[in-house]
Amino acid sequence: MRILGIDPGIAIVGFGFIDKNGSKLTPVQYGSIQTEAHTPEEERLLHVYEGMLQLIDRYKPDAVAMEKLFFNRNVTTAMSVGQARGVLVLAAVQRGLAVSEYTPMQVKQAIVGYGKAEKRQVQEMVRMYLKLSAIPKPDDVADALAVAVCHAHSYTLNSKINEVLRK
Amino acid sequence: MRILGIDPGIAIVGFGFIDKNGSKLTPVQYGSIQTEAHTPEEERLLHVYEGMLQLIDRYKPDAVAMEKLFFNRNVTTAMSVGQARGVLVLAAVQRGLAVSEYTPMQVKQAIVGYGKAEKRQVQEMVRMYLKLSAIPKPDDVADALAVAVCHAHSYTLNSKINEVLRK
Repeated sequence: MRILGIDPGIAIVGFGFIDKNGSKLTPVQYGSIQTEAHTPEEERLLHVYEGMLQLIDRYKPDAVAMEKLFFNRNVTTAMSVGQARGVLVLAAVQRGLAVSEYTPMQVKQAIVGYGKAEKRQVQEMVRMYLKLSAIPKPDDVADALAVAVCHAHSYTLNSKINEVLRK
Repeated sequence: MRILGIDPGIAIVGFGFIDKNGSKLTPVQYGSIQTEAHTPEEERLLHVYEGMLQLIDRYKPDAVAMEKLFFNRNVTTAMSVGQARGVLVLAAVQRGLAVSEYTPMQVKQAIVGYGKAEKRQVQEMVRMYLKLSAIPKPDDVADALAVAVCHAHSYTLNSKINEVLRK
């Protein structure tokens, strides 16, 4: 099963495709879609949308996982990230993919086993799980891989629960 | 010239198409795209996106105007409206349409001539400009027509300024 993790944004969208075979996780491709700050918002949204469709068509994931974002900061940022998130969810649903959402705490819990873990700890665990030589940069890429790994773990856990329930 | 005004949202998207011939404004079609509260977010976004594409393809506007929203309320709402806004802007740009944004104050200024006008005054002026027998319901539809009328007025004003500058 192939999972696409996404860290949404308007300037940088982090993405990470990983393969899950049993409990084994393998990185397939990861990186970012970036847009120029001084281009009109609508062009940036189009770029994010088309970039994501191309990635989905190329790497054909079976599921999409996205971080559920909370902003204490300001509503303008929330609106802007929301717009990018909207076109990313649209790209996924147009390709028939379900989108799972995880809060930052769920991601930390799934990866480090502790909901209040440091960002650095999460990144280091993701690096180990995926046998990467270094933590991917920028943070958006590492975050995208983290939510993909989180989904892989949750999926395993849910399968096990269903297995137990079936017995 | 045909203008499409949009009041974005995830539960209700208000829309209003108006024709502008010189200073004369004529309503073409107006209404709302509505989504069910208990359906998954991704389906609601798809519904909003596809509904807007259908409207654009049917009524073929030359320009799109949208209210620039500010939320004092909460960031979750901003994020949700932002997502809807993202897919609406995408639909417009995919059909080659420029999207103009106006703040609520600009809309009031353009329609009533006073940036702090009451909502009801704005709605009544829009009703008169478009020679409608009643204020359209719900408010989202009236707001969409208001931003379309605002764009028509701004467009006229800009044309006049350019005319003066050319002399």
